[in-house]
Amino acid sequence: MLVESIPNFSEGRRPEIIQKIKDAFLSEPGCAVLDVKPDKDHNRSVFTVAGEPNAVLCGLLKAVGAAVENIDMNTHSGEHPRIGACDVIPFVPIQGISMKECIELSRKCADMIWDQYKIPSYFYEESALLPERRNLADIRKGEYEALKKEIGLPSRRPDVGDPSLHPTAGAVVIGARQPLIAYNVNLASSDLSLAKAIAKRMRAKTGGLSYVKAIGVMLSDRNIAQVSMNLTDFNKSAIYTVFEMVKMEAQRYGVCVTGSEIIGLVPMEALIEAARYYLRLENFESSQVLESCLAKGGF
Amino acid sequence: MLVESIPNFSEGRRPEIIQKIKDAFLSEPGCAVLDVKPDKDHNRSVFTVAGEPNAVLCGLLKAVGAAVENIDMNTHSGEHPRIGACDVIPFVPIQGISMKECIELSRKCADMIWDQYKIPSYFYEESALLPERRNLADIRKGEYEALKKEIGLPSRRPDVGDPSLHPTAGAVVIGARQPLIAYNVNLASSDLSLAKAIAKRMRAKTGGLSYVKAIGVMLSDRNIAQVSMNLTDFNKSAIYTVFEMVKMEAQRYGVCVTGSEIIGLVPMEALIEAARYYLRLENFESSQVLESCLAKGGF
Repeated sequence: MLVESIPNFSEGRRPEIIQKIKDAFLSEPGCAVLDVKPDKDHNRSVFTVAGEPNAVLCGLLKAVGAAVENIDMNTHSGEHPRIGACDVIPFVPIQGISMKECIELSRKCADMIWDQYKIPSYFYEESALLPERRNLADIRKGEYEALKKEIGLPSRRPDVGDPSLHPTAGAVVIGARQPLIAYNVNLASSDLSLAKAIAKRMRAKTGGLSYVKAIGVMLSDRNIAQVSMNLTDFNKSAIYTVFEMVKMEAQRYGVCVTGSEIIGLVPMEALIEAARYYLRLENFESSQVLESCLAKGGF
Repeated sequence: MLVESIPNFSEGRRPEIIQKIKDAFLSEPGCAVLDVKPDKDHNRSVFTVAGEPNAVLCGLLKAVGAAVENIDMNTHSGEHPRIGACDVIPFVPIQGISMKECIELSRKCADMIWDQYKIPSYFYEESALLPERRNLADIRKGEYEALKKEIGLPSRRPDVGDPSLHPTAGAVVIGARQPLIAYNVNLASSDLSLAKAIAKRMRAKTGGLSYVKAIGVMLSDRNIAQVSMNLTDFNKSAIYTVFEMVKMEAQRYGVCVTGSEIIGLVPMEALIEAARYYLRLENFESSQVLESCLAKGGF
């Protein structure tokens, strides 16, 4: 069983603290750190870790401990919305684990964070107990500063723990979700308005694909417009569907698609599904990928 | 470093002997057995093993030992051409290992098989020392029975070991080669002659793609014709090129391609290259595949 977690910590400026958090993960055998992206403006670091559910859970608890010891939300500032030292912990099913099991893992994580550190939790996405808490942005409304005052209100009560913030570490948002793919498609045009018009056709909120978030942006160094997207469930809104649909929308403006890019990590299954579609592959299983077969240790 | 080997053993009928060979591989830590395909008509079993070069080499030596103890070529019969109890040992570079290193591994393997078992070896494919020994079929000409008499001739002298067969285990062909992909494309037609005509256009020998072997076959249960291929170097003759070229050739007969299939294992890179082509992916590295990143243990 393989689970991924992409916890966000409210520290992006002090390398020694980021290192302490990383060391906390690495001290847990079987919890691999795949990526660390600190951002100074946001004053926030995004970690990508993965492994067996229990190893990831134990690594997370140690890392939250390092955050509690070293981050004080009362003096924290940064551009990115946040409510806690460890701000958000998503659990993503990768292999041999169901969404249901990831939801259970998120519950366990929240309980253990409360037991060990007395930090209250909110459940979001697939783990949400209330529909109005599915969206991360809604839970983080007003950020740490507002939540400090409002946490006693019925609408803002945490899902786990007492209705008061941890004095320095605040609160944490925890939940299971599908893997997110950052996917951009480049247009043979320097007209930003075209990228924006196509993004509007693509995104779920304005009639596009259900699991796509999209905006139009300019790549100023290349002087081309780009449809920049997040695919929030690649099993339902597939990469190849997204690519072909951008191509189709671009056609109405007589504009070609010059290329696309995947930013960061992507689950193998998302690429296999593209190969399945374009090559019209029949009965192809991901276990036929040599590396995947090998990772399972053969037999 | 990750190497694959697909050794063929001249035993496909006695399950207990096949099991002994498998156990020999499994007794070597780090040598994973990914697949075992016994064939009764051929009286032959194809193993797929993988791991670090040294683990695979040690596993192979143990497995050859099990074959020497249990297979007598003087009483062996089967449809498939063969010259030894362990008939052929290909080494295939998968990850972090060059073709040159695989050739060196094949030399080491031949030396050790001679030292330990006194079985002579011939080098084929990338390891061939003579151009006329690149092709496996040429080395195996006349099979075990003819080679027994002819091994003393200058043209049939083994590359490693004395010019006489092992009394029961014969000789072995060893060499480095690119991964081979078994890839078939199905036509919306029950006309075998079309599949044969397309196969002719596809295969290297008759003007097609350099690293493609192709024949036309009937799938009698589905009543459709199929272009059945081996891709002997998917880096040079890519899966997507093969698929698009079959589509193109089929068009001249007004026939559609209904699908394709990959038989057995395929290196991840071959699928990634298809995704790169169809999605016009820019700067995509295989290390961005989450599972691949994880296999390397993150950082």
